[in-house]
Amino acid sequence: MEKSYYYFNILFIIILTTFLLIANSITLKPEKPCKRLVLYYHDILFNVTNSANATSANVSNPLNNVLGDYNFGMLVVFDDPITIDQNLMSTPVARAQGFYLYNMKSKYNAWFAYTLIFNSSEYCGTLNIMGADIIEQKTRDLSIVGGTGDFFMARGVVTFSTDAVEGLGYFRLKMDIKLYECY
Amino acid sequence: MEKSYYYFNILFIIILTTFLLIANSITLKPEKPCKRLVLYYHDILFNVTNSANATSANVSNPLNNVLGDYNFGMLVVFDDPITIDQNLMSTPVARAQGFYLYNMKSKYNAWFAYTLIFNSSEYCGTLNIMGADIIEQKTRDLSIVGGTGDFFMARGVVTFSTDAVEGLGYFRLKMDIKLYECY
Amino acid sequence: MEKSYYYFNILFIIILTTFLLIANSITLKPEKPCKRLVLYYHDILFNVTNSANATSANVSNPLNNVLGDYNFGMLVVFDDPITIDQNLMSTPVARAQGFYLYNMKSKYNAWFAYTLIFNSSEYCGTLNIMGADIIEQKTRDLSIVGGTGDFFMARGVVTFSTDAVEGLGYFRLKMDIKLYECY
Repeated sequence: MEKSYYYFNILFIIILTTFLLIANSITLKPEKPCKRLVLYYHDILFNVTNSANATSANVSNPLNNVLGDYNFGMLVVFDDPITIDQNLMSTPVARAQGFYLYNMKSKYNAWFAYTLIFNSSEYCGTLNIMGADIIEQKTRDLSIVGGTGDFFMARGVVTFSTDAVEGLGYFRLKMDIKLYECY
Repeated sequence: MEKSYYYFNILFIIILTTFLLIANSITLKPEKPCKRLVLYYHDILFNVTNSANATSANVSNPLNNVLGDYNFGMLVVFDDPITIDQNLMSTPVARAQGFYLYNMKSKYNAWFAYTLIFNSSEYCGTLNIMGADIIEQKTRDLSIVGGTGDFFMARGVVTFSTDAVEGLGYFRLKMDIKLYECY
Repeated sequence: MEKSYYYFNILFIIILTTFLLIANSITLKPEKPCKRLVLYYHDILFNVTNSANATSANVSNPLNNVLGDYNFGMLVVFDDPITIDQNLMSTPVARAQGFYLYNMKSKYNAWFAYTLIFNSSEYCGTLNIMGADIIEQKTRDLSIVGGTGDFFMARGVVTFSTDAVEGLGYFRLKMDIKLYECY
């Protein structure tokens, strides 16, 4: 009987530990991503004369700022390089493809929907992202709503911060990518 | 031996209960959201003369209804107020930023992608939403595909119903927001 | 005592099996979708003369290919029929509503965001999809980011492959839909 009792106690501890592990994996915590990547996004807007360098272009019918002075309604399609440092000339580790639009009358404020396409020795696959880019905030969070390939079925949050702005022609965003569902 | 046996039975019940709780949290049920919010969305379309009040504007290249009489292809960028009651003049509890487009030749039918941005004493964070707004149906469901801040990693369904339409100039939607993943 | 011991062993096996079942349902595997559908998507682009047959139209302000020769910036709104075989004339089992855009200067490359709307005897509900359509790849994966109705809270991956292209006027995609979260 004593043997059974000890065995029983050990089993109890094993079961409890497993429960805690499972429960922990189910409850997601902002400070505990299962994967994290910090990347830089470079956008060079087409301005009629820079077709060789431009990586994005406004394709909406211009409202000519009748709704405020902050490009309300401007919709920009992009194929932007993603680098691991702030240097635009670094070899891109991914492309960001999709669009953003400006949507406020009283300040610069944007909305993004795009795909990060990785095709390097490190990662092969995509992350799909959408959300508000509330430019006036120092950092703002968008949702990673899905992934494929090495990021199969991923979900998470990407935190944007403005890293550089040069008029309307060029801007650089720091993208702090945090995945909370990894498979 | 009897002591061990009773202990054993109690443990068995504890384990079973925990299993049921975990299993229940994994299986989502439409009638059991973990959070629910009913909000109203107000859209005032720019019509050249109402730039002070307009909250949205058509930015697509007009097709002039060559594809039916229901605005096929019209793409509207918006920054719309969200209120807890039907009154447009109530203090907004959130903004809805993104766009919708009309996409049928034979009837009014729309598609939405937008972010609900909460910045109040009650909630701070965003919900990202996309889906079809099948206007002819009394209620239609769109997907909440992600969230940030107080809605960290949320997912769910938002049920639209048309609450008021005043020509093309103003419409109000009731948005019944149901989250099924809350962290 | 022996009776208790045997009872104990049986219980142990039951608990372990349940654990494995739960663990298995939590870890998603690309080769094990919980639901799979293969469907065909037909797109007939509006070309000024085909308004009766067209199912999609370019609504962006034309860049006239100043950014490469691959329609960079073209944004196409669609309401496209979905069939279970390759025949455009088959009775549609769903509609695909949303938009795609072209976003590369050096080759044809697209980005999609749309909803599959099922309204048949077999399925009633929607699947919401977004992602990159990297046309040069034989197959490419987009994310299923949410679902409603019969596809309540679904997530998954849809694999595109080009099935036919007839100039800019018509193309057909095979959509291999794999859901990994089913409720």
